[in-house]
Amino acid sequence: MIRVLVAYDTPNDKARKKMSDFCLDYGLDRYQYSFFTGMLKPVQLRGLAKALKPFAEDGHITLIPVSADDWSKRIELGKGMLADED
Amino acid sequence: MIRVLVAYDTPNDKARKKMSDFCLDYGLDRYQYSFFTGMLKPVQLRGLAKALKPFAEDGHITLIPVSADDWSKRIELGKGMLADED
Repeated sequence: MIRVLVAYDTPNDKARKKMSDFCLDYGLDRYQYSFFTGMLKPVQLRGLAKALKPFAEDGHITLIPVSADDWSKRIELGKGMLADED
Repeated sequence: MIRVLVAYDTPNDKARKKMSDFCLDYGLDRYQYSFFTGMLKPVQLRGLAKALKPFAEDGHITLIPVSADDWSKRIELGKGMLADED
């Protein structure tokens, strides 16, 4: 399992909702409004990218793997949306 | 120098503009509307976090270091805002 960050940027409300649904379906947590994170198997990462692809037309989606070490070094300011921190 | 991802989420337009300005001042590139990335020295990362902190009150800001290896493995879909890819 690898930690993955997924962030998207689109003016299309319907696409945004669909992308959010897919991220949650794949077990990711909402980290910011358009930014999700969670642990995925490589095959799941490829599946999620494939699922998101049709909604990228009007915008931009990025899926970034991040090591546990880098993730633990993040700096967070303000109140996040994640209920349970890891 | 380390690659840093900076993403913020706030309902406050003024705070969003200020955060955007600070990210650009620190030499980061706009990757998505509220998501910046670039190379920073550790002292610059701490300086940027300090500069952004006052704007985190109504929202959430995250600064995440990412290794060159992880960054090269990212999957991008759609059209990004970065003019020059690395």
